Amino acid sequence: MQHSSFRVLVLGSAAGGGLPQWNCGCRNCADARAGRIAPQTQSSLAVSVDGTDWALLNASPDIRHQLASAPALHPRQLRHSPVRSVVLTNGDLDHIAGLLVLREKQPFALYSTPETRAVIEANAVFAALDRAHVAISDVGLDRHFDILPGLSAELFAVPGKVPLFLEQGEPQTDLEGGQTVGVAIERGGRRMVYVPGCARMTPALAKRLAGADLVFFDGTLFADDEMVRAGTGAKTGRRMGHMPMSGPDGSMVAFDGLEVGRKVYIHINNTNPVWRDGPERRAIAYLGWEVAKDGLEIAL
Amino acid sequence: MQHSSFRVLVLGSAAGGGLPQWNCGCRNCADARAGRIAPQTQSSLAVSVDGTDWALLNASPDIRHQLASAPALHPRQLRHSPVRSVVLTNGDLDHIAGLLVLREKQPFALYSTPETRAVIEANAVFAALDRAHVAISDVGLDRHFDILPGLSAELFAVPGKVPLFLEQGEPQTDLEGGQTVGVAIERGGRRMVYVPGCARMTPALAKRLAGADLVFFDGTLFADDEMVRAGTGAKTGRRMGHMPMSGPDGSMVAFDGLEVGRKVYIHINNTNPVWRDGPERRAIAYLGWEVAKDGLEIAL
Repeated sequence: MQHSSFRVLVLGSAAGGGLPQWNCGCRNCADARAGRIAPQTQSSLAVSVDGTDWALLNASPDIRHQLASAPALHPRQLRHSPVRSVVLTNGDLDHIAGLLVLREKQPFALYSTPETRAVIEANAVFAALDRAHVAISDVGLDRHFDILPGLSAELFAVPGKVPLFLEQGEPQTDLEGGQTVGVAIERGGRRMVYVPGCARMTPALAKRLAGADLVFFDGTLFADDEMVRAGTGAKTGRRMGHMPMSGPDGSMVAFDGLEVGRKVYIHINNTNPVWRDGPERRAIAYLGWEVAKDGLEIAL
Repeated sequence: MQHSSFRVLVLGSAAGGGLPQWNCGCRNCADARAGRIAPQTQSSLAVSVDGTDWALLNASPDIRHQLASAPALHPRQLRHSPVRSVVLTNGDLDHIAGLLVLREKQPFALYSTPETRAVIEANAVFAALDRAHVAISDVGLDRHFDILPGLSAELFAVPGKVPLFLEQGEPQTDLEGGQTVGVAIERGGRRMVYVPGCARMTPALAKRLAGADLVFFDGTLFADDEMVRAGTGAKTGRRMGHMPMSGPDGSMVAFDGLEVGRKVYIHINNTNPVWRDGPERRAIAYLGWEVAKDGLEIAL
């Protein structure tokens, strides 16, 4: 570990709702409740240079359980946390609701685009983050900023939509701006990119991903109409702002030729068949994809 | 169970922050992380007449974990939940943040006072509860309403304050109105009262509690200045709107003579010494008090 550039810990690998989801009786959720497959919490990563100070990428509703499950993230004094900063990739509840747990006059820095900050600031409940302790900073796209001492990051636009709770009528699902971003982290020549939500591949995004040592990418659905066919929802992946893994416009095809060192699907919906052994999982593995799991740690 | 009037399941027994709290290294939190005492989630109860349909009293940030841990609350169809209704006792984050997890177009009824509904409706994030599926009803104080078929409840004023995130300057900590309430549930001559937050005992509250078969009562702190002395906070219990267990104005003295069948402390802060064996726990036990624990089930 001493010779690595930085390390990444998967706090949560599942999409909004988690595995199992409270009101879902699908095969994956039933198997997760019965212990036949491992339960997974909602999408979030923790990154660190020294293993002492950590930055979180997104704050999921499961954050209390996630922090309790990770010894590196336990307090080391009477009131303390190794969490020095939190970066948000959009204003979706599965990425911001955990901020409500991070109240308690504990200092940390919160980084997001102005668009996501506006979502936070429009909701009085987030005043629970006392500004005397939590510094909220706007971060422009495509600019380097330090998320930890010695670890710089960059936010970049990814096609997506506004949060579901702000939708009015049929939303544009592939807006490119500050409402949905990815995070690139680079240190000592090693580069990781985290994109938990992405509506479609664009030339700019392909360029951003190409040659990365590690990518965590939107693995919400295997098939675009998976929830419709499973009877668990009326929406396609595209309607939700998530490109599927499979199909001609899916991420499996889109990553062809990008020469990414290690590709890991994250933000995986409870309906996704890759949670279990089967042809879909074999298909993604054949193309070099892994499936994130809570607790997975990767040193770069 | 067939002959009981209704049953109560403790989903969460701890105060806001839970045990362990993410940024707390106090003895109780350290012991909970190490497995020397049992971790506990944030305050919430579930009640049922038939074990099939359930009502939740408060929606804690830990609700996803709480529902997953309780087999009676698992879905029984592809999309389903035994949760038919949720009752809120105030607008504190430890009682409302779980609503953000209950999105997913799953029908249920939400009951609160107009004051607490106003807190919900002032925050756009709660639009995640699609009104086409979630019916939000105002409930007046001291009026019977059905929280489940055949199970009626009543909300009543308890001295308290507005939620922390709405405080402006020094708040009045023992307001009596709709901002903090208790819940009384009665069926077949059996009566339970749930009061997770209470600033002080009043004659009206004493009358409400007297003779109840079961009371779950505010057990935030053992001593009013416990957090100050422990170095975990600058506030007394009274400043937070919580009367202590001990002392001349504490709940141990205040319950003397009320002839409550079974008295259980709930909403217990991580600093409270009653989480462990010791003189404080023996003192409350001597007076007939129990300490709630996640998973405790009581049939009345």
